[in-house]
Amino acid sequence: MGTSVERLLPTDDARALLELTREIATKELAPQVQAAEEAGEFPASAYRLLGRSGLMSLPFDEEYGGGGQPYEVYLQVIEEIGRAWPSVGVGTSVHSLTATVVAANGSDALKQEWLPKMLSGDWLGAYCLSEPQAGSDVSAIRTAAVRDGDEYVVTGTKQWISNGSCADYYILFARTAPDPKRGLSAFLVTDGTPGMSFGAPEKKMGLACDVTTQVLFDRARIPVAQLVGEENRGMQVALSALDAGRLGIAAVATGIAQAALEHAVEYSKERFQFGSPISDNQGLQFMLANMAAEVERSRASYLHAARLKDAGRPFSRQASVAKVTATDAAMSVTTDAIQVFGGNGYTREYPVERLFRDAKVTQIFEGTNQIQRMVIARDLLR
Amino acid sequence: MGTSVERLLPTDDARALLELTREIATKELAPQVQAAEEAGEFPASAYRLLGRSGLMSLPFDEEYGGGGQPYEVYLQVIEEIGRAWPSVGVGTSVHSLTATVVAANGSDALKQEWLPKMLSGDWLGAYCLSEPQAGSDVSAIRTAAVRDGDEYVVTGTKQWISNGSCADYYILFARTAPDPKRGLSAFLVTDGTPGMSFGAPEKKMGLACDVTTQVLFDRARIPVAQLVGEENRGMQVALSALDAGRLGIAAVATGIAQAALEHAVEYSKERFQFGSPISDNQGLQFMLANMAAEVERSRASYLHAARLKDAGRPFSRQASVAKVTATDAAMSVTTDAIQVFGGNGYTREYPVERLFRDAKVTQIFEGTNQIQRMVIARDLLR
Amino acid sequence: MGTSVERLLPTDDARALLELTREIATKELAPQVQAAEEAGEFPASAYRLLGRSGLMSLPFDEEYGGGGQPYEVYLQVIEEIGRAWPSVGVGTSVHSLTATVVAANGSDALKQEWLPKMLSGDWLGAYCLSEPQAGSDVSAIRTAAVRDGDEYVVTGTKQWISNGSCADYYILFARTAPDPKRGLSAFLVTDGTPGMSFGAPEKKMGLACDVTTQVLFDRARIPVAQLVGEENRGMQVALSALDAGRLGIAAVATGIAQAALEHAVEYSKERFQFGSPISDNQGLQFMLANMAAEVERSRASYLHAARLKDAGRPFSRQASVAKVTATDAAMSVTTDAIQVFGGNGYTREYPVERLFRDAKVTQIFEGTNQIQRMVIARDLLR
Amino acid sequence: MGTSVERLLPTDDARALLELTREIATKELAPQVQAAEEAGEFPASAYRLLGRSGLMSLPFDEEYGGGGQPYEVYLQVIEEIGRAWPSVGVGTSVHSLTATVVAANGSDALKQEWLPKMLSGDWLGAYCLSEPQAGSDVSAIRTAAVRDGDEYVVTGTKQWISNGSCADYYILFARTAPDPKRGLSAFLVTDGTPGMSFGAPEKKMGLACDVTTQVLFDRARIPVAQLVGEENRGMQVALSALDAGRLGIAAVATGIAQAALEHAVEYSKERFQFGSPISDNQGLQFMLANMAAEVERSRASYLHAARLKDAGRPFSRQASVAKVTATDAAMSVTTDAIQVFGGNGYTREYPVERLFRDAKVTQIFEGTNQIQRMVIARDLLR
Repeated sequence: MGTSVERLLPTDDARALLELTREIATKELAPQVQAAEEAGEFPASAYRLLGRSGLMSLPFDEEYGGGGQPYEVYLQVIEEIGRAWPSVGVGTSVHSLTATVVAANGSDALKQEWLPKMLSGDWLGAYCLSEPQAGSDVSAIRTAAVRDGDEYVVTGTKQWISNGSCADYYILFARTAPDPKRGLSAFLVTDGTPGMSFGAPEKKMGLACDVTTQVLFDRARIPVAQLVGEENRGMQVALSALDAGRLGIAAVATGIAQAALEHAVEYSKERFQFGSPISDNQGLQFMLANMAAEVERSRASYLHAARLKDAGRPFSRQASVAKVTATDAAMSVTTDAIQVFGGNGYTREYPVERLFRDAKVTQIFEGTNQIQRMVIARDLLR
Repeated sequence: MGTSVERLLPTDDARALLELTREIATKELAPQVQAAEEAGEFPASAYRLLGRSGLMSLPFDEEYGGGGQPYEVYLQVIEEIGRAWPSVGVGTSVHSLTATVVAANGSDALKQEWLPKMLSGDWLGAYCLSEPQAGSDVSAIRTAAVRDGDEYVVTGTKQWISNGSCADYYILFARTAPDPKRGLSAFLVTDGTPGMSFGAPEKKMGLACDVTTQVLFDRARIPVAQLVGEENRGMQVALSALDAGRLGIAAVATGIAQAALEHAVEYSKERFQFGSPISDNQGLQFMLANMAAEVERSRASYLHAARLKDAGRPFSRQASVAKVTATDAAMSVTTDAIQVFGGNGYTREYPVERLFRDAKVTQIFEGTNQIQRMVIARDLLR
Repeated sequence: MGTSVERLLPTDDARALLELTREIATKELAPQVQAAEEAGEFPASAYRLLGRSGLMSLPFDEEYGGGGQPYEVYLQVIEEIGRAWPSVGVGTSVHSLTATVVAANGSDALKQEWLPKMLSGDWLGAYCLSEPQAGSDVSAIRTAAVRDGDEYVVTGTKQWISNGSCADYYILFARTAPDPKRGLSAFLVTDGTPGMSFGAPEKKMGLACDVTTQVLFDRARIPVAQLVGEENRGMQVALSALDAGRLGIAAVATGIAQAALEHAVEYSKERFQFGSPISDNQGLQFMLANMAAEVERSRASYLHAARLKDAGRPFSRQASVAKVTATDAAMSVTTDAIQVFGGNGYTREYPVERLFRDAKVTQIFEGTNQIQRMVIARDLLR
Repeated sequence: MGTSVERLLPTDDARALLELTREIATKELAPQVQAAEEAGEFPASAYRLLGRSGLMSLPFDEEYGGGGQPYEVYLQVIEEIGRAWPSVGVGTSVHSLTATVVAANGSDALKQEWLPKMLSGDWLGAYCLSEPQAGSDVSAIRTAAVRDGDEYVVTGTKQWISNGSCADYYILFARTAPDPKRGLSAFLVTDGTPGMSFGAPEKKMGLACDVTTQVLFDRARIPVAQLVGEENRGMQVALSALDAGRLGIAAVATGIAQAALEHAVEYSKERFQFGSPISDNQGLQFMLANMAAEVERSRASYLHAARLKDAGRPFSRQASVAKVTATDAAMSVTTDAIQVFGGNGYTREYPVERLFRDAKVTQIFEGTNQIQRMVIARDLLR
């Protein structure tokens, strides 16, 4: 009833996690958002709070310090974080991506050394895949890693790196052989590595607290022990985490849309025109209903994919569908939410204009929605 | 992979049911569809087969002969039936609606006498709610039931009755008091009741085998014992089954869209233009991807609602969302499926034109999609 | 006001032509439509009436018996015909296409001999371009024309031929050389030519009176004098009429949408639910408004393209935009029109289900809307 | 060809005006936009340049210093200005609105005294209709004007006033009698009137150079001679300019969409992925084609309405259709344009993110698109 969310959760633990998340999101995160986003400050304390509350490591093995939660729970936590603060939802999802890469591909030694730190709640990761000329086309990566004794020497420029300059470690993809697809390797690079530096934060339209920079490598030296997976298997490493990463963005986007819907419903009950609340107008009611339908089907889509993943079933198509569904919904629901607010919605006095600006990039990153359609079509046409 | 459906099912039993359904659908139903729909024949043998296979009584208590299955399983069975033969999917959903009404509102005596027959697989039900002037507006019902001793005497005209003239029993809503909303009562009327007759089948654009007629009552006498629920509580009786009925239609519509998608994918691989299969065109691939996304989110939406229902949680909004999502998807996916076939798709030689004609009515019955938006908005604005 | 159309017409003559068209359409065509379409009869008398009223030859030079009207007038006439009887609108547009081909490419001798007959109002033409394996891909045409003395000997099969078996002459495209693009030639073939025969009418979903057949050529002999344009220049001949043909379909589709809108508006004022006409519901009003917006922008789009054409300016992109805009609008407006009618709209008792079936093919023929998007993109990216 | 616009213009004068506009827009306006919008500076010099070039007074009688141009020319000029600098397009349209109000309703004396100044190119006007509680609902206006001798004494607060604090005169609507609809009057108020002051500029998401403020009146005194139209006829005065104002916004929105399309097409040819320009991908080509179709039908829609207006025909429905069509198109085309740019499009380094932010408000002001749908529906249902 109202705009509250009916959540299906498998255990009492999961219910407790969701309650904890909502409490932190509402009491701690939400009050800071507007000012922090206006200033573009990196939300270090928010990540620390989430991390220490165990919310930055949910879908990983308890053996390494993870929360041992299924994806259907983890993603609902991400949705709640994204609902309160989209930038932090994205950052949390990116952090998970880095840990997924290590958990799924790292040697036992690598995992035992690094995963506990990555899942400690104190560390935050970043994911260095894109380059200025290599966005959707990973095979165009030019950053080179040349073996030199027990180290790789890395030179090149990474772009669109969320948490860039603010992370504790970076998962880096670089070229170790000329073959476009079979010449990539993945590395774990800790902050402070000599030769690694950062560009200025990108001047983005929104998601300002998702600080995004270039990461530049100038003969940076990375120990061979920090290779993630085998040499020249970086493409597989990247692919292994792709679907999971997409679901994270689908959950954030659902959170954005849910937040916009809630604001729109509340405002429509308070704003009077022609002598009654504008929510009395059936035309507006139908708009709200369509917005709610988009939110519900976004949530249902990512949950369906997550449950397939949790059951060990193929879920790649469903993950791409969830990403397209939820991010297109976020764009359209926030566009309509501003419409509900009228002129007020177009100003920084109300949160919907920020959500609208935040929503747009979800259609672009972690594989543009055009790339997702290619993935879906390829799967269909097999 | 390909167009196969990744199903999440809770038990081995459920998996077996789905396999059985798909086998019957593929081997028994699909081969008859085209000819039967062209002729507009009532598919009596199809219902008998499904009934005797236990597929007409899945979501009801085993105590009364039901299958004891949760809604998430029942609806996937409906989807598979609808995928093979939309008319039969609709008829099965309508039959369930009648049993739901009795199971949820009938006295113990009524249930013990009638439910076992209704769930036997031999009987088929029809649902007599609408009238010529009472479509979305149930309070406009004029059919009157006047108490006369141990019987009610019923006079009036019902319209848009699926399975009309072909059913074994009818759940009838009639006026027992003048109050528009609090003057309705529900009755179980068996076929052959004197005073009950039927109009000619409506000349519908599609779903021809979902034989739909007027049901006319001219001083028909119904025993008081066949009152379903209390007198004058018919509105509540009608409402009790509404959400479940909507989910049935959402599942049928998902089946229609799934079938159209499968046909389109196959055809796109076989049809050559400009020297290669048309599936090589990225523009067409994106269209197929969008169709697949619509199918997946339709399925995810009805499953989400079903799981809420199975968990005893509120699911009314989600049921309406599922109905809107899946039926709008069925319309748009079948429209695009014809486009994939080009001129061929516009002829009776290929199944997509039939699916397109079938899809349209799903946006209309069991509560038009406009009514669903009213339901969603009301729930949001509480 | 209401659903009447505000037409901009350049001359009094044009206004008189539109009035005449509307009178014929309303008094003569409209009363026959429903029965004729149900029967799938070729509307020979309708064409004769239109022809003798001067409405089948409007955009052609008066020198050859044409009406000397600009395209902006001709297309509004087509819209009015299509509004009353879509099949006849299509047939008229196809007839114009054949005359355009001759007028634009024929030698003076050919024009002087044949155009006066083609524009006499007594003759109807057909356009034989597509083949079973050559739909969007004209270069795949296999029908062969081999020169033999003063004649060409033609063998092959044409498909999707509107007016097939009912026309007085056929514009035929056949292969005179192996080069896929530079080996086609165009011919004028009169009815009754030995070796020409016809398939059975296609069983189409709609537009039944637009009788569509295969046209089969088995060593049919065509005089060299009936070559239209130069030998092996058939591709250019085909292209010369393409944009004009698309505008004809855009106008018919606008007429279909306009008719559906009018029916929906009328019905919404007469149908009562919840004690008032359903047109009182703002949700439905917005649906009607969206339908009207689609109709208006369809009309504006084809008129804009027509005026560019009339001014001798490039209009190819605008013609493709008009075709996409108006035919997508016809599909969506007719889908919504049925929704306004509810269950009634799904039956053959009301005209909207026919308009819905008619609308679909407009997205397909005269260049699918996918082909149109290719045309637009190519023009943009030059 | 390419992204150039095929314009239909009635005279050589009109062609010269369009060339002049494009030259000023390209050489003078475009280079300033990015910096000025970032700073939120009022573009006083831009208005002066346009004014002195005769582009701020085009659709008004030459008798009063206007350009004597039909609306179909004026609006194309507005489109070109909006294409280069949306804020200035809006400001120019608002200025025209104020002059329209005076030209259509003012007494001869008023017109002779004020119109020449308003159309001089040196003056800029603002339009004070909305109030905090009176947006779509003009009848809720509270600002009061009380007659006191030869003056009215005005007190109240106006909101969302474009050019607020920067204009030379203000057209003000205030209450002169209690009747909600029949108690309004319109006034011309010159800048510097004692008692008139301004709020801080609204912090809007976009259109920063369209400086928008509250305008506050505290016992401001306005000479009776500056009443526009009769006392208590302010509602009619407001309505008289409504449709024309909507067309201005439709033209600006078309300009925004055209600009975004041009940027997207250029970028798609220059950005390489997978070894070729992204414009080689048919999926992207179809997206560009859809964007182009939206632009073309927006332009065609406002031109159709304008030509009806120029011909003295009813055009209210068409104006609302044009407003909805063009502003929805601006929103959707700019959303897709960012998509074409990928991550780059989300930054302030490229113009599309600004166009996207600018586009949103066009769906809101000069009558929200919901109000437009009410207007269209009312007209349909008469």
